[in-house]
Amino acid sequence: MQCEQVHACIIPSTDPHIGEYTPARWKTRSWISGFTGSAGTVVITKDKAGLWTDSRYFLQAEEQLKDTGIVLYKEGLPETPAFSDWIVSELSAGESIGIEGDVYAASDVKSLIEYFSGKNLNVRTDFAPYDLLWENRPAIPANPAFVLPERFAGKSCRDKIKEVLAEVNKNQADITIIAALDTIAWLFNIRGNDVEYNPVCVSYAAVSEKETVLFISPEKLTQEVSAYLQKEGVAVAEYEKITDYIRRIPSGTKVLINPAKVNYRLYSILSENCIIKETTVHPADSLKSIKNATEIAGIRNVMKKDGVAMVKFLIDMEKALKNNETITELDIEEKLSTYRSGQDFYYGESFKTISGYGAHGAIVHYDATPESNAAVLPDGILLIDSGAQYFDGTTDITRTVSTGQVPEIIKRNFTYVLKGHIQLALAVFPAGTVGMQLDVLARHALWKAGMNFLHGAGHGVGCFLNVHEGPQSIRMNYNPTPLEPGMITSNEPGVYLAGEYGIRIENLLLTVKVKTTDFGDFYAFETLTLCPIDTCLIDCSLLSSEEIDWLNAYHQKVYDQLAPLLSIEEAKWLKERIILSSNPKFDDKHS
Amino acid sequence: MQCEQVHACIIPSTDPHIGEYTPARWKTRSWISGFTGSAGTVVITKDKAGLWTDSRYFLQAEEQLKDTGIVLYKEGLPETPAFSDWIVSELSAGESIGIEGDVYAASDVKSLIEYFSGKNLNVRTDFAPYDLLWENRPAIPANPAFVLPERFAGKSCRDKIKEVLAEVNKNQADITIIAALDTIAWLFNIRGNDVEYNPVCVSYAAVSEKETVLFISPEKLTQEVSAYLQKEGVAVAEYEKITDYIRRIPSGTKVLINPAKVNYRLYSILSENCIIKETTVHPADSLKSIKNATEIAGIRNVMKKDGVAMVKFLIDMEKALKNNETITELDIEEKLSTYRSGQDFYYGESFKTISGYGAHGAIVHYDATPESNAAVLPDGILLIDSGAQYFDGTTDITRTVSTGQVPEIIKRNFTYVLKGHIQLALAVFPAGTVGMQLDVLARHALWKAGMNFLHGAGHGVGCFLNVHEGPQSIRMNYNPTPLEPGMITSNEPGVYLAGEYGIRIENLLLTVKVKTTDFGDFYAFETLTLCPIDTCLIDCSLLSSEEIDWLNAYHQKVYDQLAPLLSIEEAKWLKERIILSSNPKFDDKHS
Repeated sequence: MQCEQVHACIIPSTDPHIGEYTPARWKTRSWISGFTGSAGTVVITKDKAGLWTDSRYFLQAEEQLKDTGIVLYKEGLPETPAFSDWIVSELSAGESIGIEGDVYAASDVKSLIEYFSGKNLNVRTDFAPYDLLWENRPAIPANPAFVLPERFAGKSCRDKIKEVLAEVNKNQADITIIAALDTIAWLFNIRGNDVEYNPVCVSYAAVSEKETVLFISPEKLTQEVSAYLQKEGVAVAEYEKITDYIRRIPSGTKVLINPAKVNYRLYSILSENCIIKETTVHPADSLKSIKNATEIAGIRNVMKKDGVAMVKFLIDMEKALKNNETITELDIEEKLSTYRSGQDFYYGESFKTISGYGAHGAIVHYDATPESNAAVLPDGILLIDSGAQYFDGTTDITRTVSTGQVPEIIKRNFTYVLKGHIQLALAVFPAGTVGMQLDVLARHALWKAGMNFLHGAGHGVGCFLNVHEGPQSIRMNYNPTPLEPGMITSNEPGVYLAGEYGIRIENLLLTVKVKTTDFGDFYAFETLTLCPIDTCLIDCSLLSSEEIDWLNAYHQKVYDQLAPLLSIEEAKWLKERIILSSNPKFDDKHS
Repeated sequence: MQCEQVHACIIPSTDPHIGEYTPARWKTRSWISGFTGSAGTVVITKDKAGLWTDSRYFLQAEEQLKDTGIVLYKEGLPETPAFSDWIVSELSAGESIGIEGDVYAASDVKSLIEYFSGKNLNVRTDFAPYDLLWENRPAIPANPAFVLPERFAGKSCRDKIKEVLAEVNKNQADITIIAALDTIAWLFNIRGNDVEYNPVCVSYAAVSEKETVLFISPEKLTQEVSAYLQKEGVAVAEYEKITDYIRRIPSGTKVLINPAKVNYRLYSILSENCIIKETTVHPADSLKSIKNATEIAGIRNVMKKDGVAMVKFLIDMEKALKNNETITELDIEEKLSTYRSGQDFYYGESFKTISGYGAHGAIVHYDATPESNAAVLPDGILLIDSGAQYFDGTTDITRTVSTGQVPEIIKRNFTYVLKGHIQLALAVFPAGTVGMQLDVLARHALWKAGMNFLHGAGHGVGCFLNVHEGPQSIRMNYNPTPLEPGMITSNEPGVYLAGEYGIRIENLLLTVKVKTTDFGDFYAFETLTLCPIDTCLIDCSLLSSEEIDWLNAYHQKVYDQLAPLLSIEEAKWLKERIILSSNPKFDDKHS
């Protein structure tokens, strides 16, 4: 920093593709601070260093920052300054702030430049001394890509490119540059193995009337993939050539980008010559979010497989508990993974399983480690949030299950969460409705009881792609994207009592059109996930008859769809567990 | 236009104060087109003229534009061009568009300038030939102002100015300019008679540490008002002097304004010298929206008076119907007004009463005229939306009442609307919640039945001020203002079947804090309005027990509060009418 006359530097958690998960190559923030959470920003000045992260990571960050000299700044607390304000208070007018524009979203850097320039501070966007300092820095991932056959993708790459181009033209642009890895994987019907849990390949794409270019390391291209891309009319260039390519775009060309999903370096090169058309939702992401008939058929099939794995796992765990076997959080992760991996077209997990017993369940992003690994005791509740990637779809399911008799207060809170889950599942809404309008349905029972949960009630889910995808969401925050037929969104209310327990119930929802009246089109949700909800945890006196009807119908559907795929013994278990009034799960202990 | 080399001119419905209602002086759009609706824009070119208005006014505009040569453009239909696009299609590059910046919101003019400059068209913002052309143009209203005593206002002008100044400083500004008439009336605790239904005076205000200046015509200032303003430390200047005043603001002064509520002329003068700090919600409007204890006590009292007037009116109407007397929509307006005007501190109506029988009820902004005036027959439903200004508060209430036996389908739809009304009334929500999050509660029963209503579920209401005020709202559209304790907001779901009937049930709600838990502060609504809901129109089988409990508790409260103010006979009527199972309203016809 001294050599470069930089007085503060900002290290975000993002990479050149501004994704949620980052390949090891770009985990600069983790490398420099030791803090491994998914969200957090480090700021370093001549004599101070700080990490800003949110409440999900307060405990973990405190632990990991011990003895590093890095101060933890807890975002969201009233006394915590924004890191930008903190920098202003530490620096003097005329001093400089260093940023690595290659790994920072263009929209964020633009805001920082505007903010700091108002404070008479300079921003240098090419500050990246990390290659020199970082010994044994991991390389850019070089895993082979593979083609996702059209029988899974449902639409050819050629047709998707046509659709994207039509939208680019509608936006009065000539070309679009895409850096988001899941968008690229969707567009080209290719998948890869470069990012943990996300089956994507590190790459960029440029799409114009003239040509479609995929920028990808040749190491990744098997003969099959190369031949496929050629057949689909896609030109291939080296990954690093993206900058040369956009430098050579003719002056005055109109380029469509989403500045929140393109890094600042590309943006600044583009802005030298081109007219940038900014969009907050890239048309390819809109197209990706509306699943086609093949994808929907795939996800329905995946839900059966995932449901079978969940049921077998639940039976297994229940037996172990009844037999007083020791079973830990990590055992559960492993068991679940084993049952899933036995299913057809299984590819891997879609995110790190959260298996949290008791107080661990209250840590929304709990990650069991050999050190934290708790034994599951027959007197509480266990929260299991897990999912898988299959060639024919992606799953994400949370169940909270009793491991023995539980106090009434836990049942009451479980039932409030369930009421929210059911009310959202029962939503009917006119075309144009956005997630923020429906979010209250998932929360109102909790709000009435003076409780809440601070994560979203729902996120989009990809098809054999990222388990979190946009553009839609169901949150307390405003997101202008309406919920459209064909979108898959999670339904996951919860409640977390720090130090005690956590509850979450998560299914995936498909938006479907249900009727057209004089008042327009109306949509509703079809619940896709097939897995019983623990009836031992329900206080039926708190459910309305509409809610009881939903639950019974849901459980009947779960039974009808899964029973043919289970053994007679397993089907019998399922039949017993879905009865609201007399679940025999812990019968022997009831007496 | 030819003399001035203007090729198109735009005439909006607004005035220099950008209010909802416009004094006759500035009804330029009505004068030039003959169309008297509250919303609409006229565009005139060399050989064409068009009026753009929304669905509320399609029928009225068609009628009023007959033989004018002005073409009606129906906003909201897919085939209707925006007037800006239409102008672009009619003009040639380099031509000019004339606007009267004095009566157009600064934010709108800025958008138009940006849009047209991208199309190589010039915008002149001083095009105002109307004084020359408009024979007998009404003068600026010159009605006397009066002081609203502190026993009604609850806080002195001096204290309000201090609070506003503190907020101006927080926004890092030195001075604020206010053009919104209700904001000025609130700030100075003065009222007037310049705008229909809104008890305000035409004026501007400037507030800074140095001085507070009220720009108002001296004709309006009685000796009492002058003395009062002097006592409160308010300087007075002539209404027209606002432009000189802002021209003399020292260069570099930071001026806080809401550009949606300041006209473009003032904005452009300010922008010559000053640094403009824009806000979407003026801090005075935020302060105004949080009613103080005196105002809340006032509105509670007003609700009793308004409820008594409504009950007496309902008894009267019921009698007339039973006696087969002819009673028309206009009779109803008059009767209601008579009962209200007998109440203490009555000042006038808070908006034009909507009294719509049968199909007229489906016209959301129906305004009965001698021509349209329908007789109320004993076989349908009547929608009455009315309100009053009292010195101690403003009311706004809608009741839909049966005038005889009605078919089950009407009862079903009434009950869906009622369910929405009750669900919104029962809302509990954490601090920070905005109206868009709660809006679904008022609509979900309708949505499930494939119906909807296109107006907001709730708007803010002033205290002896405008019946529609911001900044909060409960709508399908996003509005970032949270609902705060002390705010008064309407709860008015409805459903409208064109050509058949309309249903709306409207009460006013006070936001109150109900509890603080580990999850923060939680708020709820207290229903303020006191008037029975027609139980003859309810299909009880569609109500949940929670909804029935709310209705019975509400009616009990209505009875308890109003009965002491009614005659024994009237109280008996009220007691009978609020019984859910056996309302004897049309008993004789039941048999």
